[in-house]
This record gives sequence, C-alpha cells and structure tokens, in this order.
Amino acid sequence: MPSRDSDMPFLDLVGNMRAMRRLKPDPIPMELIRKVLDAGVKAPSGMNLQPWGFLLIRDPDSRRWFGEQYKEAMLSRFAGFEAAEDDPSPNARAYRAVRYQMDHMHEAPLILLACGKRDWPFRVPEHERVGLAPPNYGAIYPCVQNILLACRALGLGAALTTMHQVFEAELIKRFEIPAEYGVVVSIPIGYPMGNFGPVRRKPAEAVTYFDKWGAVE
Amino acid sequence: MPSRDSDMPFLDLVGNMRAMRRLKPDPIPMELIRKVLDAGVKAPSGMNLQPWGFLLIRDPDSRRWFGEQYKEAMLSRFAGFEAAEDDPSPNARAYRAVRYQMDHMHEAPLILLACGKRDWPFRVPEHERVGLAPPNYGAIYPCVQNILLACRALGLGAALTTMHQVFEAELIKRFEIPAEYGVVVSIPIGYPMGNFGPVRRKPAEAVTYFDKWGAVE
Repeated sequence: MPSRDSDMPFLDLVGNMRAMRRLKPDPIPMELIRKVLDAGVKAPSGMNLQPWGFLLIRDPDSRRWFGEQYKEAMLSRFAGFEAAEDDPSPNARAYRAVRYQMDHMHEAPLILLACGKRDWPFRVPEHERVGLAPPNYGAIYPCVQNILLACRALGLGAALTTMHQVFEAELIKRFEIPAEYGVVVSIPIGYPMGNFGPVRRKPAEAVTYFDKWGAVE
Repeated sequence: MPSRDSDMPFLDLVGNMRAMRRLKPDPIPMELIRKVLDAGVKAPSGMNLQPWGFLLIRDPDSRRWFGEQYKEAMLSRFAGFEAAEDDPSPNARAYRAVRYQMDHMHEAPLILLACGKRDWPFRVPEHERVGLAPPNYGAIYPCVQNILLACRALGLGAALTTMHQVFEAELIKRFEIPAEYGVVVSIPIGYPMGNFGPVRRKPAEAVTYFDKWGAVE
C-alpha cells in the first residue's frame, strides 16, 4: 500500500471504502472539498448534460435543523431499529453506526446535498410539488460514487444517505432549491473517528452469467 | 503519471475516463473482466442489499443480434443524427463516435448488461411486462461507475449506453432474465482503438452553492 491514501490505485481504493458514519466535528479544508467535487463532475452523463448541482450545508443552525429533521424521519421509518451494545455481529455493528449517525448528524462539519435535474417536464403549479418528476438518478449516482471515492482517497469519512426524501419539500424550501432540481442524496462529510477498512460483499461471480441468465462457467 | 494505468491514483484516473466507443475485436482475458466485476460489487447499496446481476454477452450470434437491435433503436430515436466528417468540433467528434459505436456494436468482444432488482412489487401477470417497477437505479449506478473506472484502470475501453431500453422486452426474453431484474445499462467492452484522454466538463464551482442555492463564495 502506498503511504498516502491519495496515491492508492483505484482497484485497491474501491474495496476499502466503507460507509464512515462516526465523524469528528473538526472543519475540513475547502481545498479538499473542491477536489472531491472536481472528481464528482468528472462522471459521465447522457449527452454530457451534467445535470447536477451541489449544496454544501456548513452553517451550524442549518446543520442542526437538518439533523433534527433527519432523526425524526429515521425514527418514523425505523422505530424498531435496535441492536444490543455487546452484539458483535456485522449487522448489529452497522445498526449501531446508523443510530450514531442519526444522533450526531449535525456534528458533521459539512452536509453535502447532491441534487439532480428532474426529467422533463418537471414543472407543476406553484406551491404544489407533489407529482414532480424524479431527478435523473442514472446521471447523478455516478457523480455521487466519484464523490465518495474521492472522499476516501483524501482521508475524509462519508456515507450516502437518502432519508432526506421524507422531508425533501422542507429541505427545498429552506435552501431555496429550484423546482427543476431534486435532492438525490445527502452525504455528511468529516474526518473519520475510526479507520477505513474493507467492505463486505457477495463475490461478483455469484451474480455473473454468460450468454444466458443462470449460465455460469 | 505512473507507468501502468492500474497504478494510477483515483484522483488522476477519474478525469481521464472518456467514453471509448471505438473498440478492437480482440478478445479480453477473463481475468481482467473478473477484476472489473469485483470492483463493481464493491459499490455501496442501501442496507447493503447489493441488488445487481451481470449478464456477459460473448456469443457472436448474440452480439450480432444485440448490435442489430441497438442500431434499429438508435435510428428510430436519432434519425437526424449527423455530423460532417471534417467538422472538428467536440460535438461533431462525439456524434461520429456514437455513430461508429452503433455500426460496430457487435464487434466488441463483450457486451455487459448490468441488471438491477426492481423495486417491490415487481411482479405483474405473466407475459405482461408493461408496468413493471423500474430497477433501483440508485443502487446500480454506483456499481456501474466502479465498473467503468475499473475498465479504465485496466486499459479496457468501455462506454455506458441505455438505448437497449427500447428493446428491453426482447432482451429479457432472449437472455431469460427473470422478472425481478431490469437491464439498467449495456456496456460494450474491448481494447480501445484510440487513446484515453481527459473528459470535458463544466467546473464544479459553477454548480456549487453554500447554505443556500445560488450563494457562492
């Protein structure tokens, strides 16, 4: 392994990008965030339309507001979401990390909203957002994945969350996001408390087929 | 720049991943394809559900069939899609590359179909696929982006295409893809005829705002 993570070849980096949900409150140099977003916009998109935009929430009041909304949304969906403190299983560890994130969301020095242009037609009568076309996820998620990889390369902890969808209307109103954009993911970013490590996944060969679904070699 | 592309740090690689649409017919070692798919499955997905599957089209008859369907679909949507051979503008160059890809799709030694599980409920009455829920794009595109980056790292040319959606029903029938999966992207892969190079994108700072949409610093 190279000494600096930012020198790590992609094929090593990609499997060492766990969701990092425990973040230090220390501020992040804007120089690093610029590198992260520069990597994001390098993603491919249909017709090279680049239908993305980024809102960086740094203001403490706004982070606190976001954290409260997020926790409320989480609890409304995952009321039974519990794991004993001494349960060492991977699932229990993941649950505890998700719960930590929920309780400490506002401590992340930066919450990045990755927004995507809605499919046409996106307009609906004013003050009526129900029924808006969804954003073009296929164009935004490659950009999001680049952002997560760049955070990892630069030693920043990050995790992809989507629970903001529960309060997207309030989010859009507070941050004055125009109607043609939807908020696709929210990513709290900060220096990680823990260490980066390998991801747990099923092997690719378990879901790879040749010339006909189900045919292996 | 390191001597081997597979040693290239992510932050250099990510901006050097043009869509490669002119591919040599030479076969690709399966060892490389395994590395590509291994990188793919390292992607994050909600609840770590990993709702992806890969169909590798290698059989020449199937590639020819796919190429014919693809060309027909392209022509049905982009009949006026022309660029003079001597037009040096970036758009004209891109158009010519897309047209080349359309005419030579079957020559790619491998066409990868990246499939994603449909959102629940996905089932509809038998022999009736209209109205199926879409696949979970948010879970598949990070995997797709990893696949494209891994191809680039290993010196393989690749390009993301979605025109198969026009003939997805035929595709699903021919390759016996089960109802719970949709084909999200089709990626022809092969050794590139041309050279890798930098991508053309708007700078991130043109679409980055602070604490309120439109606020810059």
